[in-house]
Amino acid sequence: MKLRRGYLVSAAYAWILFLAPVFMGVGSVAFAYDELVEKKVFEIPFYMTVGGCTVKTVRTGYETYGKLNQDGDNAILITPFFGGTSHAAGKYKSDDRFPGYWDGIIGAGRPLDTNRFFVISIDGLANPNIMDGITVTTGPASTDPDTGKRYGMTFPLITIRDLVNIEKTLIDYLGVKKIHTVMGASMGGMQAFEWAAAYPDRVERIIPVVGTAQTDAFAIGTLESWMAPIMLDPHWKGGDYYGKEAPIDGIKVSMKAVLMQTRHPDWADKMFDRKWATGDKDPAKSIGNLYAVQKFLDDASSDLAAKYDANHIIYQVRAIQLFSVGGKDSLAEGLKEIKAKVLLMPAKNDLLFPLAQSSELRDLLIKQGNQVDFFELDGPLGHLNGIIGISQASDRITRFLSN
Amino acid sequence: MKLRRGYLVSAAYAWILFLAPVFMGVGSVAFAYDELVEKKVFEIPFYMTVGGCTVKTVRTGYETYGKLNQDGDNAILITPFFGGTSHAAGKYKSDDRFPGYWDGIIGAGRPLDTNRFFVISIDGLANPNIMDGITVTTGPASTDPDTGKRYGMTFPLITIRDLVNIEKTLIDYLGVKKIHTVMGASMGGMQAFEWAAAYPDRVERIIPVVGTAQTDAFAIGTLESWMAPIMLDPHWKGGDYYGKEAPIDGIKVSMKAVLMQTRHPDWADKMFDRKWATGDKDPAKSIGNLYAVQKFLDDASSDLAAKYDANHIIYQVRAIQLFSVGGKDSLAEGLKEIKAKVLLMPAKNDLLFPLAQSSELRDLLIKQGNQVDFFELDGPLGHLNGIIGISQASDRITRFLSN
Repeated sequence: MKLRRGYLVSAAYAWILFLAPVFMGVGSVAFAYDELVEKKVFEIPFYMTVGGCTVKTVRTGYETYGKLNQDGDNAILITPFFGGTSHAAGKYKSDDRFPGYWDGIIGAGRPLDTNRFFVISIDGLANPNIMDGITVTTGPASTDPDTGKRYGMTFPLITIRDLVNIEKTLIDYLGVKKIHTVMGASMGGMQAFEWAAAYPDRVERIIPVVGTAQTDAFAIGTLESWMAPIMLDPHWKGGDYYGKEAPIDGIKVSMKAVLMQTRHPDWADKMFDRKWATGDKDPAKSIGNLYAVQKFLDDASSDLAAKYDANHIIYQVRAIQLFSVGGKDSLAEGLKEIKAKVLLMPAKNDLLFPLAQSSELRDLLIKQGNQVDFFELDGPLGHLNGIIGISQASDRITRFLSN
Repeated sequence: MKLRRGYLVSAAYAWILFLAPVFMGVGSVAFAYDELVEKKVFEIPFYMTVGGCTVKTVRTGYETYGKLNQDGDNAILITPFFGGTSHAAGKYKSDDRFPGYWDGIIGAGRPLDTNRFFVISIDGLANPNIMDGITVTTGPASTDPDTGKRYGMTFPLITIRDLVNIEKTLIDYLGVKKIHTVMGASMGGMQAFEWAAAYPDRVERIIPVVGTAQTDAFAIGTLESWMAPIMLDPHWKGGDYYGKEAPIDGIKVSMKAVLMQTRHPDWADKMFDRKWATGDKDPAKSIGNLYAVQKFLDDASSDLAAKYDANHIIYQVRAIQLFSVGGKDSLAEGLKEIKAKVLLMPAKNDLLFPLAQSSELRDLLIKQGNQVDFFELDGPLGHLNGIIGISQASDRITRFLSN
């Protein structure tokens, strides 16, 4: 198995799209959204977090596909996943190697039909991709206007509600009256739930994809491995590494955990089996000789570490750990706020947010009177089926959006 | 939820037994093997690894329960799991807090009946527990007689077959002619398979508990998180930390991954839910404020790091990554060597070696003519059910051992 490094680095969403079209038998990704996409920047002079801290000058990148109608009620908001950006559809330049991550369902004649809907996608708070040359975000890596220095760990902790509140400010600015649908994968699915609980009169539908409405103890513990290696890196220095050497090795080790835990044995066994990374370098001979799956982890985590800010990872991980819908201790209490129609879209073999969680959510939502639709994503990729495997749900999404 | 640190440290197998009797509703662990147990030491002047390297003066601790019969055919060998030791039954001193990890099935009148069987349990090669004050092992932390210095990473890589070969030398020394049964959990289950493939005429039965006969790509990748954090710790220094500060923080981060990946959401959610570690320290207020499950990971990983040698962890992890039964590339080829009767004992909700792997092994073994029995361990602990939940299989083990 040859893993071409150049191929990896070339795409903004390489760690997600990586291997999928080429090796997974998914076929080449069609370029569905035909207009070239522009990253726009939204700025507000200050924002007060849910925790009561004020941040001056909050900026976030966003993209839009399609046009807002006169009634301001045809908007679909796409909320970002951990590690992702606003680039959900189209290409920035016609020779970009890959389109946005959900391009398969966005565009003229696609489920998120840009002839009909005004689709908005956002980078959001503390987005890790600060070194990709295009993402715009505010977080610990930003400069505190009061001190002229980077915030580092003095930046206030953020929650999923904070992500949602920034999104709401953008939505208001764009003139959206009713949000037709909020849709997002993983941490984006959490934002979809939170939108419906926080602003029940603004949101008509939500599509949480491989999401959950409350992070459980197992996920909180599992996410330690996404954060602790960064803090172990001596270059992290309590988050005060700006202008010095960044904790790249710590990010790499963290991302190795992320890359595995968001996937599934069916993927690994099919892709790599027990192949060696290099034909003549037997892993039994030296600890530095690797299996192909280890080489994949090395390469993919290096590519992520080159784009990501360590503190931003820590802040988004904590936001995920903190999440309980509606800010309530009780899941049932939080769900009660939700009026929207819900299309739950778990992945059958998700190891991070297991299918059973979505089944429980479905039952609770139906019990309290919500209109609930349910679609199980299939495929060998586990949690990642929510990104790579989204097109299999096209018909169901189309139907749900017309209801 | 109060986690008492003293309670954790007191037991040699604290990370395994930890919380089980007190909180899991398993009830108090009965003290089944009534004799006091003594750690014995076996030493051989040299050993040549499967990879062709010679190691001088190999020592391993072992324990025995019961007596070898005149025909030398009543021995049950218990092979060690990753992170475990030879202490499978009984107590060293009558006031030990806990007995050995499988005490529930070992002793007079228990399935591994010490009136009938001669049970042998071994510390084995590169056992991580070098600082527990009782474990005896040889590995990278040992002193190379040729240089008078610790081996560190110059110690040759070891395989599951090497563990088995040292065990065979002990078995021969003890006068065992036929091994009635080899039984082990996890990495111990791998050794059971390897025994049956390597020495088919010496082994009548094997009981691989939460084991597998071949480490798949997903497990190889997952195990990166058990090793990479150690190498990230600046104190690791390429394995040359003896006499200096040990990479304790790296071991801690590695063990956090181990502690989660060998368990299951059912356990975490029941034990911790979304409780905070400390009543007034809201995790939303500071990154240092923890959830209870994070505090558990901190405490349990600290206790393990105080006992474990970093290089020994790395060596056993690589041995697990390298494992394919019989040293064959093909699983089916390796299994063909096995003549023993097999009792497969997977855990239903094992996230490390999923149930489906054992079902596949059962089918392959039956197809090639082996006598195969199958018992699914239940319980909320995932992989760890193989240690904590073993007593539920008592009747099945008793029946299998009499067949």
